[in-house]
Amino acid sequence: VTGWVDVPDDHPFGLHTLPYGAFDGGVCVAVGDRVLDLTAASRALLPAHAALFEEPSLDAFLAAGRERWSQVRAALSTWCTDLAFRDVVEPLLRPAVDVTLRLPFTIADYVDFYASEHHATNVGRLFRPDQPLTPNWRHLPIGYHGRAGTVVVSGTPVVRPSGQRREADGSVVFGPTTRLDLEAEVGFVVGTGSRLGRPVPLAAFEAHVFGACLVNDWSARDIQAWEYVPLGPFLGKSFATSVSPWVVPLEALDGARVAPPPRDPTPLAYLDDTGAPPWGLDITLEVRVNGELLSRPPFAAMYWTPAQMLAHLTVNGASLRTGDLFASGTVSGPRRDQWGSLIELGEGRRYLDDGDEVAISAVAAGGVGFGEVRGRVVHG
Amino acid sequence: VTGWVDVPDDHPFGLHTLPYGAFDGGVCVAVGDRVLDLTAASRALLPAHAALFEEPSLDAFLAAGRERWSQVRAALSTWCTDLAFRDVVEPLLRPAVDVTLRLPFTIADYVDFYASEHHATNVGRLFRPDQPLTPNWRHLPIGYHGRAGTVVVSGTPVVRPSGQRREADGSVVFGPTTRLDLEAEVGFVVGTGSRLGRPVPLAAFEAHVFGACLVNDWSARDIQAWEYVPLGPFLGKSFATSVSPWVVPLEALDGARVAPPPRDPTPLAYLDDTGAPPWGLDITLEVRVNGELLSRPPFAAMYWTPAQMLAHLTVNGASLRTGDLFASGTVSGPRRDQWGSLIELGEGRRYLDDGDEVAISAVAAGGVGFGEVRGRVVHG
Repeated sequence: VTGWVDVPDDHPFGLHTLPYGAFDGGVCVAVGDRVLDLTAASRALLPAHAALFEEPSLDAFLAAGRERWSQVRAALSTWCTDLAFRDVVEPLLRPAVDVTLRLPFTIADYVDFYASEHHATNVGRLFRPDQPLTPNWRHLPIGYHGRAGTVVVSGTPVVRPSGQRREADGSVVFGPTTRLDLEAEVGFVVGTGSRLGRPVPLAAFEAHVFGACLVNDWSARDIQAWEYVPLGPFLGKSFATSVSPWVVPLEALDGARVAPPPRDPTPLAYLDDTGAPPWGLDITLEVRVNGELLSRPPFAAMYWTPAQMLAHLTVNGASLRTGDLFASGTVSGPRRDQWGSLIELGEGRRYLDDGDEVAISAVAAGGVGFGEVRGRVVHG
Repeated sequence: VTGWVDVPDDHPFGLHTLPYGAFDGGVCVAVGDRVLDLTAASRALLPAHAALFEEPSLDAFLAAGRERWSQVRAALSTWCTDLAFRDVVEPLLRPAVDVTLRLPFTIADYVDFYASEHHATNVGRLFRPDQPLTPNWRHLPIGYHGRAGTVVVSGTPVVRPSGQRREADGSVVFGPTTRLDLEAEVGFVVGTGSRLGRPVPLAAFEAHVFGACLVNDWSARDIQAWEYVPLGPFLGKSFATSVSPWVVPLEALDGARVAPPPRDPTPLAYLDDTGAPPWGLDITLEVRVNGELLSRPPFAAMYWTPAQMLAHLTVNGASLRTGDLFASGTVSGPRRDQWGSLIELGEGRRYLDDGDEVAISAVAAGGVGFGEVRGRVVHG
């Protein structure tokens, strides 16, 4: 897609991406290295939809549903390509570096999955050497609820958490975590909610999910190891979860849909996506610590797709709300340079020091960029 | 406390209780068998605080903080005792049976603990016969995040959830749960939030927590058993959590504070409540299924107090928000007739059938009532 807006076709935020964010002035859209004030633009050019963009949050737009999501995206595309809109639109574009982005939407419930077989195997080997993958792993996308109130936007400093850990000699001590880790993940943002008691089937994924973002699920491995049996991760995760400021609409990822890996055993009917259009996604992440490339995790290698995650999350009748965020769990591929967390590197690995900055970026097939989620560790 | 309002001293909702709720018209207070429209009363008698009661929710009042909570409670007490207020207040009292109560506040994050040693031992014996209490149990109040979006008010029907379970022969099947259980718990409601990165110490419990309510943490044991390793309960719990419509302010529970059981080992400093005014609470619950008394769980037997739960929840720097709800986990005492869930009853126990109605009520020392949380199981 080319237009009067001067953006190279291969720019990750080219006109094929058009991700949404929030800033003090309302809602905005990334267009190359600039940011379009959608709140102002909609008042001038799309008054019937302007009420969706009055707040500095995507909440109202998320709730508006798929038809309006498509209409607004089509309008944005037209504005940036048709010269007739240039006079109105160009003054509403400002350099991205001048815009401070906020948490893009109000997080309702936050769920984190564990959907990479490579990650689950690598981590499972450390915690449960005799049986890295638990017996349920290939039957269902394992997930748990995280703390919605501590989801923060990229750039927010992450205070090193303190907590209990058990030392090698068996003593239980309290102090700042000595094993602070990152987890590179992709998150999915629920737009339209659902009714309590009514599962959302695989085929309704697109009707409910607005788009995707990047997630760093910071993890204190020593706290987690001591606390997590029997009720799962709690304080080892709940101190902070960072998300990217840009939400990429699902429509922009159409060209990145790929078949997921083969599953064995065949999933139960509500998870069986055989024959349906695939919701594997060809997205390549990049993880950097202090600017140095750590790994390039491939989302296409995920065992469970986001459509399966959503079907599982709701199969017990749990309802969805606008702003629910569910993340994939750490994305890891088969190779060491594709692992999305530090713990997987085993002996000789390092953990994060105070002052370390982690940046996770991603690009989907077709050159659709996600931008990045970034955070620096600060002393607790 | 006696006054012109005709309420017997021994009524669970006597003038020593004055719990808060929400209805279509705004915020209300239970006074004996009647309900006071606090939204209307505050406009007439407490205009400086009336803005806190404009919405049909306690949210604004919760956020207002301890000083205002005390002022409003003192005013309520005066209105109901001083004859000078009778002409204004009496017309704003209506029979409780005529008022439909709503979810009393917006649930921010929902956390569930596991703080009864008796319950944890009874359940642990079934899941892990060799080691009922995990090694961490006496070192920290184990907890996990639940689904805030499926917390429902008393009276909401509970749809029997479906999900995966593993049969005795090892096969994995899908269908309605065959082991639907109840869990009788006490929940604590956060009023004022806290800053990210700043733990809330034991001594700040009263500054943050507004009050308490009753919780039924419905549980599908077959779904839970299959899914919960390694990341904890998920779909086995997330289909519904019922709360009582009345929130009892912490001030009303002053007379119910008792010393918690002795702890061994002595908790780490941030959990050590030795010498501090105790936050054990002498509250007796009653669990009924279809009207038949199942048990009378004693909250005073809980190993961990709510102040310890809050200190633990935030010790990693996790922030609090107005409307956070944290529940105690199933309340069980040492005796069989004090167990707060069905699973603990072992062989010969029954689970819940479609049509069964569960009601959990409670009274604290001093005759302070909680009302009840009630729910009927309906076919999925």
